Amino acid sequence: MIALDANGADRGPRNVAEGGRRAGVPVTIFGPADQLRNFENVVDAPIAITNDEDPARAVRAKPDASVVQAARAVKEGRAGGFVTSGSTGAALAAGLFHLKRMRGVHRPAVAVRLPIPSRPVLILDCGANVDSRSEWLVQFAYMGAAYMEAVHGVQRARVGLLSVGEEPKKGTEEVVEANRVLSDGPLDFAGNVEGNDIAGGQLDVVVTDGFTGNVALKAVEGTAITVMEAVRDTIRSGALSSLGGLLIRKKARRLREELNQDSVGAGILLGLRGGAFVTHGNATPVGVATAVRLAHRAVEEGVVERTEAALRESGSLAAASATAVSVGSGS
Amino acid sequence: MIALDANGADRGPRNVAEGGRRAGVPVTIFGPADQLRNFENVVDAPIAITNDEDPARAVRAKPDASVVQAARAVKEGRAGGFVTSGSTGAALAAGLFHLKRMRGVHRPAVAVRLPIPSRPVLILDCGANVDSRSEWLVQFAYMGAAYMEAVHGVQRARVGLLSVGEEPKKGTEEVVEANRVLSDGPLDFAGNVEGNDIAGGQLDVVVTDGFTGNVALKAVEGTAITVMEAVRDTIRSGALSSLGGLLIRKKARRLREELNQDSVGAGILLGLRGGAFVTHGNATPVGVATAVRLAHRAVEEGVVERTEAALRESGSLAAASATAVSVGSGS
Repeated sequence: MIALDANGADRGPRNVAEGGRRAGVPVTIFGPADQLRNFENVVDAPIAITNDEDPARAVRAKPDASVVQAARAVKEGRAGGFVTSGSTGAALAAGLFHLKRMRGVHRPAVAVRLPIPSRPVLILDCGANVDSRSEWLVQFAYMGAAYMEAVHGVQRARVGLLSVGEEPKKGTEEVVEANRVLSDGPLDFAGNVEGNDIAGGQLDVVVTDGFTGNVALKAVEGTAITVMEAVRDTIRSGALSSLGGLLIRKKARRLREELNQDSVGAGILLGLRGGAFVTHGNATPVGVATAVRLAHRAVEEGVVERTEAALRESGSLAAASATAVSVGSGS
Repeated sequence: MIALDANGADRGPRNVAEGGRRAGVPVTIFGPADQLRNFENVVDAPIAITNDEDPARAVRAKPDASVVQAARAVKEGRAGGFVTSGSTGAALAAGLFHLKRMRGVHRPAVAVRLPIPSRPVLILDCGANVDSRSEWLVQFAYMGAAYMEAVHGVQRARVGLLSVGEEPKKGTEEVVEANRVLSDGPLDFAGNVEGNDIAGGQLDVVVTDGFTGNVALKAVEGTAITVMEAVRDTIRSGALSSLGGLLIRKKARRLREELNQDSVGAGILLGLRGGAFVTHGNATPVGVATAVRLAHRAVEEGVVERTEAALRESGSLAAASATAVSVGSGS
């Protein structure tokens, strides 16, 4: 069972519920029941958390908010994971507050799988944190690899650490230290990689801090859109090329779909004791359905347990005291 | 006169010299004279600084290295600016050591103008620094705006501060503080912008720290290449679309040229007391010629003086004591 939060999406709750119905897996929908007639398994949850609110405060102040109820359903075993089209911050806060972090995990991360045509790549952290510590980066690497292996059928994930040069000494202090630790670990580690390697087709996972990851993810998405539009405008600007454009239209549409956010499905919050997924805010029913199926598969494949096992085997879990320090120093 | 360093380029010194010859402006070439027969105005400078060396140490240890000689030519007034196809680190070190920072500038920045079809955008810092301070970001904003106005004919540059959300409170401490200071200043300031705004066509300048900027720049370049290749492969994968591809070939080639690094010309090091430019390492003669002409125009338009004036008027120049603190804390 997947708990689906229907509030907070750009296209409204019915659109999200329609995506849940199309997913073809068992779903409980948390949203405004009066707007969701005709849908099955609806729990009335009209209260939403908006982007303007401080997520942590809102999650505490609104225990009946739909995303909080969805997270609680996972915690209490009524659902295997939750999916929301609302604010990532609220999903993260609800996840931290109700599902809790895995023992020994410093920080959760938002991971997004980019549909690069030759080889999809998972990039994390895409914005759960704005600061960076080397030990967080190390854990992100193992969490990302475990996810790609468990849910996306990658045999042995190849992981790169994003920096400003390939040499192990290039980058911030945190990156240099994370490179050193990862080089000594059991991972298929490609070492430092650069911005052009994200879409380069040679990696399964790209690890970075949440500030850089958020910027890089949106830079890749934005550039793909701009270039596709430039191709279209170029083709339309002449009679001969317009004719050529007609002949490639079908193929071009398929490529656009391949690169579309709807085929990405969702970001996953890694490092929590339960599956939590966030779709694009303006996801169509197709995008929501993809996300729900992704969440379902993650639960079936035991991604939480496998992530925890990978972290344990890597020796990168924090000792109890180290965790306490980490909690004390912010969050 | 532009001083052109011919060493360190992927395609060798003759290729760089050929670019200098084609530029159509007065050039002095610093490189291995025995490989540069047939070229005019060559100063024999066979010693290069490679990417493997520590730039600051190499610049001090090799006073005859070609990039150091080029920088010295600017310092001594024999050239108005220098261009190199070698290591950015070496160019920066040579610039800092011989040209010096502008008085009151905390850190120089590498600025690169991306050829976004609808509106080219300058992104800085692209890697002169890996760390970030709010007062550096503030200066980058004024330096970038002054450059676009002086050299690229922008009337009043619109400047965005890269972050993980549009709200002024989103981002790292440094970004939040820089947003506050820039909001109160004389700039046409768009506030926080996100990764997708880089290629979005609404801005003239995007300001960020050198780590994020380097990653974002390469992510944009890499994605543009990947998408163009995917378009080509898609078109070639069928008979009808292949025919369509033939009809759009000429237009597609022009677009590729527009998005090509050769049309970018060069990165400029802003914040030094003299013009310093770095081309792509694998620039063709066309790319080198573009860079040399860019450097020539920057000198003609007095970009150094205008940048200094813009910083002074903005009130963002460091007081003598603050500069001393900044120098003491690393570099």
